[in-house]
Amino acid sequence: MVGVSDGPAGFQAIREANLGIVLRTIRQTAPCSRAVVAASTGLTKATVSSLVADLIDRGLVCETGLVTERRVGRPGMLLTIDGSTLVAIGLEVNVDYIAVSAVDLLEREVLSRHVEFDASSAGPEACAARLREVLLEVAADPLLRDRPLVGASTAVPALIDAPAGTVTNAPNLGWRDFPLRERLTALLAGSPLEGLPLLVDNDANLGAVAEYRGGHLARTLDLVYLTGEVGIGAGVLMNGELLRGASGFAGEVGHIPLLGNGPLCACGRRGCLESLAGMDTILRRAVPELVPEGPVRGSGLGELVAETARRAEAGDAAALAALRTAGTWLGRAVATLVNLLNPSAVVLGGYFVPLAPWLLPPCRAAAAAHSFAPDGGGCRIEPSALGLSAAARGGAMALIDALDTGALPLPPATAA
Amino acid sequence: MVGVSDGPAGFQAIREANLGIVLRTIRQTAPCSRAVVAASTGLTKATVSSLVADLIDRGLVCETGLVTERRVGRPGMLLTIDGSTLVAIGLEVNVDYIAVSAVDLLEREVLSRHVEFDASSAGPEACAARLREVLLEVAADPLLRDRPLVGASTAVPALIDAPAGTVTNAPNLGWRDFPLRERLTALLAGSPLEGLPLLVDNDANLGAVAEYRGGHLARTLDLVYLTGEVGIGAGVLMNGELLRGASGFAGEVGHIPLLGNGPLCACGRRGCLESLAGMDTILRRAVPELVPEGPVRGSGLGELVAETARRAEAGDAAALAALRTAGTWLGRAVATLVNLLNPSAVVLGGYFVPLAPWLLPPCRAAAAAHSFAPDGGGCRIEPSALGLSAAARGGAMALIDALDTGALPLPPATAA
Repeated sequence: MVGVSDGPAGFQAIREANLGIVLRTIRQTAPCSRAVVAASTGLTKATVSSLVADLIDRGLVCETGLVTERRVGRPGMLLTIDGSTLVAIGLEVNVDYIAVSAVDLLEREVLSRHVEFDASSAGPEACAARLREVLLEVAADPLLRDRPLVGASTAVPALIDAPAGTVTNAPNLGWRDFPLRERLTALLAGSPLEGLPLLVDNDANLGAVAEYRGGHLARTLDLVYLTGEVGIGAGVLMNGELLRGASGFAGEVGHIPLLGNGPLCACGRRGCLESLAGMDTILRRAVPELVPEGPVRGSGLGELVAETARRAEAGDAAALAALRTAGTWLGRAVATLVNLLNPSAVVLGGYFVPLAPWLLPPCRAAAAAHSFAPDGGGCRIEPSALGLSAAARGGAMALIDALDTGALPLPPATAA
Repeated sequence: MVGVSDGPAGFQAIREANLGIVLRTIRQTAPCSRAVVAASTGLTKATVSSLVADLIDRGLVCETGLVTERRVGRPGMLLTIDGSTLVAIGLEVNVDYIAVSAVDLLEREVLSRHVEFDASSAGPEACAARLREVLLEVAADPLLRDRPLVGASTAVPALIDAPAGTVTNAPNLGWRDFPLRERLTALLAGSPLEGLPLLVDNDANLGAVAEYRGGHLARTLDLVYLTGEVGIGAGVLMNGELLRGASGFAGEVGHIPLLGNGPLCACGRRGCLESLAGMDTILRRAVPELVPEGPVRGSGLGELVAETARRAEAGDAAALAALRTAGTWLGRAVATLVNLLNPSAVVLGGYFVPLAPWLLPPCRAAAAAHSFAPDGGGCRIEPSALGLSAAARGGAMALIDALDTGALPLPPATAA
């Protein structure tokens, strides 16, 4: 599993890696006995017993009852993941809100918050300060207060340098080259969350993780998740793995060029998908008298989307035309995804969900018309069931997954 | 490496798999001793010695000299791949030619042929018959005559059901649901090549394999190869693995919709990349008086491409305009690839290569203009150095690779 190295540092690294391996094995096969874990991992029973004792001390694993099969020797206890202790927190910053989701080791959501926040007007420094506040409030919430935290993840609609935790370019927030993880780490110094592991990733990538691990198309190996915000991003899972590309910048479906001399996009180009089917464009056409001059920003976005849905429901011509046009462009983009990637499913997320009854028919028609493979290569186009917290929840799930692979420091054993 | 199963069938399967593992290890570390192979694979020295003896008998491995390092015991012989025996043959059918490439175990090309053939007029049955003839001729060539064949691969510009060996849809050949492998297998019955393992795959996928294994951008992990024929296909390697999608239909870049109400494409849609930048469109505009009515087909295509290059060289306005327009559309398609996949390199193959001096500048400019990531995410756009035999060579290389992974029957030991 891990190369043997001499000295105590090497020994500790192997033990941490083996803790992750045992944790993952128990997650996959629970309830299971120590003997089954030993057989599955190739570790000796003595090593497994020692590692399991450590995982129980750390609140990751618990015993759940006696093995019932008849066997030689005294009966062993069955092991399972302890969903009652550790949690991971996921945050998402978007143009008009901060979403929060906390997930336990069984990937059950134990807390969810939607905080209205005008992130694009606030700028990156004020937003980092607000993220710190939200994080401290959530950690102190009675639902989480006594539970150790695995870490916190922040999803941003942006090109992200994930290893560095830097936001390279977020056109709809107006941020460039902002070292978000570094700033959050500094802001949390001296607080109860000092030293908490922090991840930063693209919102569409984390939305795709949430769909894959817990959406209604869960375990669909070749899946694309589309964020439906002012921006449109794609999280692409191929064979169950996130497709990140050579420098981590894959999935920028919002900026594929669809129309020569089309409308101006926030990125400065013309005719990008986002300028044709993003929320800004949809709302400006659907509820024109409610949308101020300049880009749609701030915390009224959700209300404008709801008003658009109400008008479409009532048969308002402008709202219906706006949704039909946007749905058709979205379908051409989906056809591009189908032709290039041949996914089993494309999931529409975010604000696309409440508008799906009107977006989906023209979207599906255009996608079918422009897909080369027969029957769109079998691709389904469905609305997400995860709502606006998908990326937040996916980030929390990614932290739990990192725990299994030993990629994060495991929480130390508590002095029981 | 392989799960232990009881009975002789299981033992044989394990031995075949271990032969592949030892072969791959020797390929990666040659020249190397048996001891190094044992240490790298975890197999015992006795097992390695027995497997190596078998590989030497089969003509896959040879001894190359004494280990020179001082060590205890008698010196061992160094092992290396035997490039002098086995070969794999790759064929490519395209609209106007059949290309052939034979590759040895060291992936050196030992034979290359270009056969003019009007595959679209001939239809699939006559084409299969011609492929049989070409295969038998090549196998009987003095360069290959006494060398055992690993198998033969056929690349087709089409949606391919690779596991079944069926051509699902080849619009530029006019084939639909043609069971090519089954037909070739039947046609080879009774010939010296009866029972030869046959693969069928998409031409762009196999072109990407050739670029990855032997092109001037070899070992670029995130690479897209674009075929430049009447059709345009993409072979996408992400992290060194072919991206095939849920049903094997990924990479159909030729049919991404780029222009609403654009020109009619061979697939029946309008405004596909192929209808804007495929050879048919380029030639019709560049050398209009030489192109007959109806689609450009048949074996004169290479000559028309050469004439286009001559006219562009001489400053002919129509030729230059045709290439500038096609290059710009190609650049928009490359920007779409960059935004969605973030590759390190896009390689232009086939007939794009002789036209690259005029296609590349507008292509690079449009790609940069429409890429969201700074500096196109670092993506290089380069002509292929492999010419029209790239897909044929890639198919032969894929067969050699399959040998390493134990996926093909290894050739039986010859009675020496």
